[in-house]
Amino acid sequence: MTTDTILKLRQDALAICNEAISASLPDAAIHRALRQIPAAQGRTIVIAIGKAAWQSANAAYSMLESRAPEGVVITKYHHSSGPIGNFSIYEAGHPVPDENSVAATRAAIKAVQNLTAQDQVLLLISGGGSALFESPLVPLEELKDITQQLLACGADITQMNTIRKRLSTVKGGRFGTICAPAHVYAILLSDIVGDSPNMIASGPAYPDASTSEQALELARRYSLQLSDQAWKLLGEETPKDLPSVTTMITGGVRQLCADAVRAAEKLGYETILLTDCLQCEAREAGRFLSAMALTHVADGRRQAYVLGGETFVHLTGKGLGGRNQELALAAAEGLSGLANAVVVSVGSDGTDGPTNAAGGIVDGTTASVLAAKQISIPDTLADNDAYHALEKCDGLVITGPTGTNVNDVTLLLLN
Amino acid sequence: MTTDTILKLRQDALAICNEAISASLPDAAIHRALRQIPAAQGRTIVIAIGKAAWQSANAAYSMLESRAPEGVVITKYHHSSGPIGNFSIYEAGHPVPDENSVAATRAAIKAVQNLTAQDQVLLLISGGGSALFESPLVPLEELKDITQQLLACGADITQMNTIRKRLSTVKGGRFGTICAPAHVYAILLSDIVGDSPNMIASGPAYPDASTSEQALELARRYSLQLSDQAWKLLGEETPKDLPSVTTMITGGVRQLCADAVRAAEKLGYETILLTDCLQCEAREAGRFLSAMALTHVADGRRQAYVLGGETFVHLTGKGLGGRNQELALAAAEGLSGLANAVVVSVGSDGTDGPTNAAGGIVDGTTASVLAAKQISIPDTLADNDAYHALEKCDGLVITGPTGTNVNDVTLLLLN
Repeated sequence: MTTDTILKLRQDALAICNEAISASLPDAAIHRALRQIPAAQGRTIVIAIGKAAWQSANAAYSMLESRAPEGVVITKYHHSSGPIGNFSIYEAGHPVPDENSVAATRAAIKAVQNLTAQDQVLLLISGGGSALFESPLVPLEELKDITQQLLACGADITQMNTIRKRLSTVKGGRFGTICAPAHVYAILLSDIVGDSPNMIASGPAYPDASTSEQALELARRYSLQLSDQAWKLLGEETPKDLPSVTTMITGGVRQLCADAVRAAEKLGYETILLTDCLQCEAREAGRFLSAMALTHVADGRRQAYVLGGETFVHLTGKGLGGRNQELALAAAEGLSGLANAVVVSVGSDGTDGPTNAAGGIVDGTTASVLAAKQISIPDTLADNDAYHALEKCDGLVITGPTGTNVNDVTLLLLN
Repeated sequence: MTTDTILKLRQDALAICNEAISASLPDAAIHRALRQIPAAQGRTIVIAIGKAAWQSANAAYSMLESRAPEGVVITKYHHSSGPIGNFSIYEAGHPVPDENSVAATRAAIKAVQNLTAQDQVLLLISGGGSALFESPLVPLEELKDITQQLLACGADITQMNTIRKRLSTVKGGRFGTICAPAHVYAILLSDIVGDSPNMIASGPAYPDASTSEQALELARRYSLQLSDQAWKLLGEETPKDLPSVTTMITGGVRQLCADAVRAAEKLGYETILLTDCLQCEAREAGRFLSAMALTHVADGRRQAYVLGGETFVHLTGKGLGGRNQELALAAAEGLSGLANAVVVSVGSDGTDGPTNAAGGIVDGTTASVLAAKQISIPDTLADNDAYHALEKCDGLVITGPTGTNVNDVTLLLLN
């Protein structure tokens, strides 16, 4: 029996997520950043890369139109929405770079060559930039092969980037060097937990922390099969100092969580931010939250616990789902029978895994609704099939693409 | 560099755990319960079962000596500490029942047969009772075989108990029936998250919630290989009503956490109880806590987050460790570099997994200490070898057997 209490909690949970995501849309974030930047004496070049590149560039253009900015926009397929002034707009491959990524990146490089110290580059970076912004120094096929080898060795993302930055014309600070002597303002909408600027889009305008010595050591340790050209590139150093670059983080999961906290407080919830940098297995985070619900459900207070970050999923099955859906479905088991608890988890970009849902929402009735339909939560999780289970218990959150990409937000609401 | 801040946090963390566990020792808990029970008109029989049986019986005897109680004590090997009045004291197998379990249980049955309504049975139950208190209605070998079959099918603990209660003389409320018409006071020191009295020691004096219909359905669903006798027993019902039994929960993880919260507050920490019924993968709980630390470490307040429950470990390696050690070691990775964060996790019985440690304690220096010794935290976790890693970074908490058994307590302290 879905009670009024549960309906109200679900409504509040979705409203809080919606408000937090709206506050993270590029328009507000880009305007906030641009207001802090002095106008250029010379030319203004906008380079926007990432899943939110179109919105970011559009927001920038609306503020800078009088300066007649030039621009190159590189986003994922189906992520642009029409012309912006005379900007060149490209769509390209993600998460695997393709020929269009390379062509678009060459156009961006061309646009920032031969600038003067009076010129200004506004580099608007959002998540997905690593694949979209790429002009490799080895053939694209070899780059893909090296990436596969690294994945197969269990290399982590930092190790992958240590290698890949050296095989790229633009990564690891190299795009910043190309722009010199123009001043670069790198405005980051972060999709990396912890907001590390040398990770976001592989840090095209940020001094690289890794060394060629580390790159060569990794290549030997993992016995990578590399061409002579690739071996030579690994030995070349990336920029360690970029005096003409200013980096500004204008949005990310930290901001997303802060906005969720504010929205929950506005609705009268006693609100606690648990973490804004969660990185653990999605289903275990769901179990953790349902255990919190069991302990606090009888407190008799309206409570909101807010989490953000990027959980992960271990694929053991062939079902359909995403990390937010798995988190929610796993929580449903522990919440079973509670009359006043809701868990919601959504990706701020509106796309959770390879599905059309942004995430999942569950409450104390979810487990029994599923049981009545002969759907076992453990079996569903083992098959990574959260999407189809949540579909059958009004548990999918569907927003469509939101235009931003600042990781996930998760809430536990109690009443 | 281990700073004074870290040393103080470690000291506080251990002090809080120690105080919480001390408050959960059977003596205090048993005395608290016995004070609420009227004296018997007739005989007083003490039946103490579980890992804390000896301490519980000893505490009861010290209060009841003038009534000349009779008694049977059944505990794990090496868990008794000498005679108690004229009580019969047995040590037996755990976690697998053995011939001594059966002999001891027969002695307990004999002690409570032929009582009158004026007599009183004080049934002191602590964790481990399921194995220690067993007189099966099928041969012990067959019982073991059925348990193995259930484990192999992935049956959960509730399903296991639904079957096993029906194969036992004393489980699922049946011991309560044997004691009638004497009044039974079942005093529970709970080792079950959620403190469900029909789960603790398989509920020897608690009305059974499962039905023989469910038992038969499970046996068919899992295609169990059973003797005719076992099939017949599954069809027999357990007691659903035990009017002469009073059940009192006098300690458990809820109390343990409440005592930890009190102890942390006394030391000046702003304290939040996250959950007292945590059931998720140990290492993921550790990651969750380190993500909380990263978010709150700069708050500039002395904070304590308290958790309790029983996490679990997936064995993928052949190392040595326990769930509390895995939780702590996994947290160490995320805490790396933080100057003011400590995570401690301990089993209240003083034994974490098959080790001589109660649990683990880590801080922001742990990961670098291990790295300097060429110890990789991910590799160690993959080998389930937390004990040997923690041993090398002053990370083991060693208390020896504490005399209680009320699950685990975990703390994140920030300064």
